Amino acid sequence: MLSPAFLSQLRRLLPSHSLLHEREDLVPFESDGLSAYRNVPDVVALPETEAQVAAILQLCHAEKIAVVARGAGTGLAAGALPIDGAVLLVLAKLNRITRIDPLARTATVQPGVRNLAISEAAAAYGLYYAPDPSSQIACSIGGNVAENSGGVHCLKYGLTVHNILKLRAFSIAGELLEIGSEALDSAGYDLLALLTGSEGMLAVITEVTVKLLPRPERAQVVLAAFDDVAKAGAAVGNIIAAGVIPAGLEMMDRLAIRAAEDFVHAGYPLDCEALLLCEIDGVNEEVSDDIFTVREVLAASGATEIRTAESEEQRLKFWAGRKAAFPAVGRLSPDYYCMDGTIPRAQLPHVLQRIREMSAEYGLAVANVFHAGDGNLHPLILFDANVPGELHQAETFGGKILELCVEVGGAITGEHGVGLEKIKQMCAQFATPELARFHDVKAAFDPDKLLNPGKAVPELHRCAEWGAMHISGGQLPHPELPRF
Amino acid sequence: MLSPAFLSQLRRLLPSHSLLHEREDLVPFESDGLSAYRNVPDVVALPETEAQVAAILQLCHAEKIAVVARGAGTGLAAGALPIDGAVLLVLAKLNRITRIDPLARTATVQPGVRNLAISEAAAAYGLYYAPDPSSQIACSIGGNVAENSGGVHCLKYGLTVHNILKLRAFSIAGELLEIGSEALDSAGYDLLALLTGSEGMLAVITEVTVKLLPRPERAQVVLAAFDDVAKAGAAVGNIIAAGVIPAGLEMMDRLAIRAAEDFVHAGYPLDCEALLLCEIDGVNEEVSDDIFTVREVLAASGATEIRTAESEEQRLKFWAGRKAAFPAVGRLSPDYYCMDGTIPRAQLPHVLQRIREMSAEYGLAVANVFHAGDGNLHPLILFDANVPGELHQAETFGGKILELCVEVGGAITGEHGVGLEKIKQMCAQFATPELARFHDVKAAFDPDKLLNPGKAVPELHRCAEWGAMHISGGQLPHPELPRF
Repeated sequence: MLSPAFLSQLRRLLPSHSLLHEREDLVPFESDGLSAYRNVPDVVALPETEAQVAAILQLCHAEKIAVVARGAGTGLAAGALPIDGAVLLVLAKLNRITRIDPLARTATVQPGVRNLAISEAAAAYGLYYAPDPSSQIACSIGGNVAENSGGVHCLKYGLTVHNILKLRAFSIAGELLEIGSEALDSAGYDLLALLTGSEGMLAVITEVTVKLLPRPERAQVVLAAFDDVAKAGAAVGNIIAAGVIPAGLEMMDRLAIRAAEDFVHAGYPLDCEALLLCEIDGVNEEVSDDIFTVREVLAASGATEIRTAESEEQRLKFWAGRKAAFPAVGRLSPDYYCMDGTIPRAQLPHVLQRIREMSAEYGLAVANVFHAGDGNLHPLILFDANVPGELHQAETFGGKILELCVEVGGAITGEHGVGLEKIKQMCAQFATPELARFHDVKAAFDPDKLLNPGKAVPELHRCAEWGAMHISGGQLPHPELPRF
Repeated sequence: MLSPAFLSQLRRLLPSHSLLHEREDLVPFESDGLSAYRNVPDVVALPETEAQVAAILQLCHAEKIAVVARGAGTGLAAGALPIDGAVLLVLAKLNRITRIDPLARTATVQPGVRNLAISEAAAAYGLYYAPDPSSQIACSIGGNVAENSGGVHCLKYGLTVHNILKLRAFSIAGELLEIGSEALDSAGYDLLALLTGSEGMLAVITEVTVKLLPRPERAQVVLAAFDDVAKAGAAVGNIIAAGVIPAGLEMMDRLAIRAAEDFVHAGYPLDCEALLLCEIDGVNEEVSDDIFTVREVLAASGATEIRTAESEEQRLKFWAGRKAAFPAVGRLSPDYYCMDGTIPRAQLPHVLQRIREMSAEYGLAVANVFHAGDGNLHPLILFDANVPGELHQAETFGGKILELCVEVGGAITGEHGVGLEKIKQMCAQFATPELARFHDVKAAFDPDKLLNPGKAVPELHRCAEWGAMHISGGQLPHPELPRF
């Protein structure tokens, strides 16, 4: 609980409409996109200027009050979950596009600007911002940087970290940090990459300079159906091995296909076990060449049906199914739990098979909708929170999937971040020396642990308490010990 | 001076051939590629295994002895300059290619493996490693990671940080850190990017997993001559603005052109003020399309002559001049000082003009040979170290060029790192809060400051002592104060 004295100091820093403290105003901020985790914040600050952000941080620093930064609240790992006794610092009102420079191909924007709004503003110059999380209509760039967000096109165009140049950020002490440059590289340690994906634990971002890309001359998508998930997984590797770099290479399994088709009528074939969507973009002839190659590889990989979108309308329809897959799956089941793990592409057939087996073991259905090209899995575990024990069962199953990702050489997150959700699995991903470095890096920015405390990096003793074991080279150090 | 007791402990960790302490054996290690800075090391350790690296670090940590890591010694910023009383830890003998995985498109190599050797080994699979510093025949991948090296092709393919996936590294305490993953992304703070470019100050790298790319189907190069450097600079922006992403886009000025032509007879036109070399790679039609566009843009930008290489032989000849430009310029003058600053592309004409003016002011000729496409300048300042004061004059002039880079929104390094050379200019690049964060990050990895002390990040009080001023938004905070 925040003290009345602190709140009255806070009140002096902001106009009254920028500070929420009535319960009915606070409830909308009780969770981010992972609504299984909820906690009504004590107070919500909605600064409108950088100076207000700095002043709030200075006050919290002086009074040793924790701060949880939040963007649009679309995160899927409870990274922006409110913490008791903390200020929820919502950056949504810092939503100006400050500058677009078509020659340098950059846009400078405030953190509350929506991802899609950048591309919309850049469209006048034939440019766009490449990373496109499924939530791009709603999610904001500050949150994208905080979680190092990806999207359908990050196979070719990279994650957020590869598409930003510069940040203005404030330390917990309220000091301005100007990080990166508008040139190719920057001197000193790479704080730009360090802040990207740091989940609000190192600094609060108030401005982002992003790279813009020219719109490709043409984009074309091929859809392929398979009678076996493992074959579709192998086809992904074959496409990459053929030297093609698709703009996007997505996979859906039977449950996801049916759900998406029922929901948006994308025209997907229904008599199959898996679908691939492979988008190629670039100059006209390159697209034609690559589409030809992709179709050949898909046929050789055992696709039972291959279709190329015949119009822009059909291309968008093919994508509409994929993009609506999460809400579509949501119609199948009272609740679902969206996982986010990453594996080396070559492991796709094995991992998909194991998920299928675990689905039977746990008695919970799984729909798979994911960025196959970069090995970024999004298994959606279906459950009913009103059935006692099912939420816990789903969480346990999800944890096992993430451990499996680590075992095959992958990571417990691709683009959603760790947040509170995967903090236990960090113990499986990292050994003590790496976790210790994370804590030391945190201390370098925030020695009092005021910025988003308790998220992303587990305290070292917690791994032992949880019985969580580091997995190295596919092996637990002591396989006889219990696993979490 | 290292104590006999310490040396005898060190001797116990390594076979005798792996430890150099005779002066004649030590002298070859007195400098890296920036030979203006020299210091004969006290001792050179040449470990052959990861275990030996760990043991050396543990000993140095226990005895509080500094460690300077060194790769092939081709660095250009005195980053590997030996320090008195320190161990020079040369990683050249860790030179095995451990694994090439053509499906995952990765190579796992030890730090002493030469950059070019990776591409040679990957060629059997039609793959290569993209970053290509001019020293690629000699420089090693460990040094590339330490300096975040670039090269001619980093405009399209990125710097080292964009082309690596995983590191094994040892902390100064001799603890193994496994950083990154073979998947798209990794959880936790981005220590992979943090170590990349950290100039041996955070950890010692013992293994690097790099990304490999398929060899492009075709590469073609256009050469264009200009009667004015500013016009050539503007043409660079025009090519990018036309939506082309060249594989490389290089510029040379009159002095560099003549020197290169005299040296390797590349067939360059001599009656011009500037040359651009624009390489396009990709699938056949894409290359043809882009070459057509580039030629049109070059003509519209006022090129006096435009040639497209008519054969692979001619393409390589065009490049031979560029790649030999540094040694070629070395033939013009007893000494030269190679700078490495980065600027936003749009500033090229302005900055080239200012360098020309400063060249007249300082009475020192400058040859410009650089990665124009990504705004990475390499002015070569010609001087004669035997003329009293000329070295100092060259250094002062070089410092002014770097300050100019910062003033126009760029950075004091593109791909050579800060090392000892540019440590003063770090004060111009960064304000106290950023420098303080650098020191805190250093302390997170190496609280005793044993790894490469005194390099890359100036002590805060030194900036004041040097009278070096942070430049923000093109403005010195107190323009009336003297500049260094």
